[in-house]
Amino acid sequence: MQNFTFYNPVKIIFGRDTVSKIGREAAKAGKKALLVYGGGSVKRNGVYETVTGSLSKNGITFIEHSGVKPNPVLTHTREGIKKARENNCDVIIAAGGGSVIDESKAIAAGVKYRGDVWDFFTGKAAIKDAVALFTVLTIPATGSEMNSGCVVTNEETKQKYNAGSQLLFPRISILDPETTMSLPQAQTANGAVDALAHVIEGYFTTKDPDVIMTDELVHAIARSVITCTDRILADPEDYGARASMMWSATLALNGLQALGYGGGSFINHAIEHSLSALYDIAHGAGLAIVMPAWFKYHLKTDGPGRLIKFGNAVFGVKSAEETIDAFENWFKKIGAPVRLPEVKIPAADIPKITENALGLINRWEIAGYDRKTVEGILRTAA
Amino acid sequence: MQNFTFYNPVKIIFGRDTVSKIGREAAKAGKKALLVYGGGSVKRNGVYETVTGSLSKNGITFIEHSGVKPNPVLTHTREGIKKARENNCDVIIAAGGGSVIDESKAIAAGVKYRGDVWDFFTGKAAIKDAVALFTVLTIPATGSEMNSGCVVTNEETKQKYNAGSQLLFPRISILDPETTMSLPQAQTANGAVDALAHVIEGYFTTKDPDVIMTDELVHAIARSVITCTDRILADPEDYGARASMMWSATLALNGLQALGYGGGSFINHAIEHSLSALYDIAHGAGLAIVMPAWFKYHLKTDGPGRLIKFGNAVFGVKSAEETIDAFENWFKKIGAPVRLPEVKIPAADIPKITENALGLINRWEIAGYDRKTVEGILRTAA
Repeated sequence: MQNFTFYNPVKIIFGRDTVSKIGREAAKAGKKALLVYGGGSVKRNGVYETVTGSLSKNGITFIEHSGVKPNPVLTHTREGIKKARENNCDVIIAAGGGSVIDESKAIAAGVKYRGDVWDFFTGKAAIKDAVALFTVLTIPATGSEMNSGCVVTNEETKQKYNAGSQLLFPRISILDPETTMSLPQAQTANGAVDALAHVIEGYFTTKDPDVIMTDELVHAIARSVITCTDRILADPEDYGARASMMWSATLALNGLQALGYGGGSFINHAIEHSLSALYDIAHGAGLAIVMPAWFKYHLKTDGPGRLIKFGNAVFGVKSAEETIDAFENWFKKIGAPVRLPEVKIPAADIPKITENALGLINRWEIAGYDRKTVEGILRTAA
Repeated sequence: MQNFTFYNPVKIIFGRDTVSKIGREAAKAGKKALLVYGGGSVKRNGVYETVTGSLSKNGITFIEHSGVKPNPVLTHTREGIKKARENNCDVIIAAGGGSVIDESKAIAAGVKYRGDVWDFFTGKAAIKDAVALFTVLTIPATGSEMNSGCVVTNEETKQKYNAGSQLLFPRISILDPETTMSLPQAQTANGAVDALAHVIEGYFTTKDPDVIMTDELVHAIARSVITCTDRILADPEDYGARASMMWSATLALNGLQALGYGGGSFINHAIEHSLSALYDIAHGAGLAIVMPAWFKYHLKTDGPGRLIKFGNAVFGVKSAEETIDAFENWFKKIGAPVRLPEVKIPAADIPKITENALGLINRWEIAGYDRKTVEGILRTAA
């Protein structure tokens, strides 16, 4: 077990009928909110009405910033910053999934910075201040509701990059599983793949194989994600499954899932970010394509040990090959794509995707992945 | 899954050679420390020297408050409060196990209160302020390093009661597994039993049987505790096992282990507190005696469902009876007592113990445990 530091001060309010608490909580931090949301699903599922009602009831006026894309983009983030500044917003309310929360984090930091918010993503500037952020989560997937990072895509340069700071931890995140009942099956599946991807990155790239407790935690989260997703696909209104799925996805990237691994690397995410940056596919869909291909590469280079351990604990299988098959079969079962053609990405584009991915691999300082290696992984997924 | 709120802002600094960070961290909160420790093991294992050196190096002067008992007592707590006041201490450093941390929490709250600190334990007063607390943990067991509760025994009234407040969360807890290498086998075993007891209370008294994620987490922690303890007893200097054991015990009572269970109850702790209050036995030893007896009672009243689920996931057994046997056999294997005579408590004292336990059962509002029931559980352990 490698040394680590863990700190996560996000307060989680979880359960039925909790969305209406947002106003009272946010009122402790500010009086003028920027209300950030996406394409309008929050209007259809009642979250918008509950949130705005609660804000008003608690004396918070708000300006709306809607239209956040599934892969949030820089231009829209800049618009949000402008709007928040012009209206002197002293609190940001994110109502939606991880994309809405991520863009809200970027806005929270950008408002307090004189330069361009993209500087935080390229590493040109560090985040030194941020507006208080409160979230109402409606899609279990990214874990953004309980961590301090965010990902935004620069449409111009086609870079899907990340930024982070302890200042970006939401003050409070409200998780009401009932808000997820109306999610389309594809979003449920993509969220499940994303949560699984979050726990496997550190697990399979650990610098230390002897991390009993965190290995057990990773297995626990993975098993829960799989059990819950299977139940949800059988019955979308299964509250118990929706609830544990929501909490599992949060635990999958709140920091606990990688403690003792000595950092690990996010190589699957580095490659996937290029797919969603270049083709605007769902992040979870991209991960379902990249992961099996990467597992095959991992098996060749690092051996079967971790794959056997994971497969045994999570899928009840005995070999590394069976573990990879189990992943791929489960992705297929829940309707996630597992090959590039399924999302209409031609094999001919692999060099271009690789070029893009190398940018993030360099930025994240992931060793051992040169052009040939990344191309090889992508060809396995072709 | 029942509604819940989760908040835990403790910063954990974990790993080798981390104890020396205490001074720099504590200097952010104060300049004059009350240094709390126990019977002197911190002097033998080098922790005392490292802590005091680090405090001095960072310009923190300190007053010592040593001699905390394994079951910390009220009179000594009051002395600590007096000492901290007289010396205008603005920060408290706890160096030791859960008892040292618990007494330090009580002192931290007591210093800021005009009345008697015991008022917090009887419910006569609520904690409204506290001195900043930093801990250096040396025994994996109680989880106090990452929660906001504390337990102190009033020697006069023989009440082992608890108090708590968000103000009692340590600011920072330092966990260096190497400090646990020299623990006597009995303390390793007692700590393991305590950690297991923390995860089973909520699990077996849940108001909702459908809490997939937390059930998985409980299984994960329990498996880790058992694996680590077995490895430590085979080789006390097994760093990987010491490290995961330390982190497992912290996770076993930082709040995550009970989310969604709707509160649950701490009935095993309620009964055990009477054993250690009346006979000053180790808390873990008392729990190893109470738990199997309580499981037998639980099986009769609540049925085999949870016992089968737990036993299957943790011990690989199939029936409730086998699960109870597996617990009891494992306790015996690690050298923990499983019957009252083993710690020299006579069966004739059962009415007296029951009387004491009912005080805590009433205070904690645990339903379903009258005099006859508690006596019955204790007789099963006789």
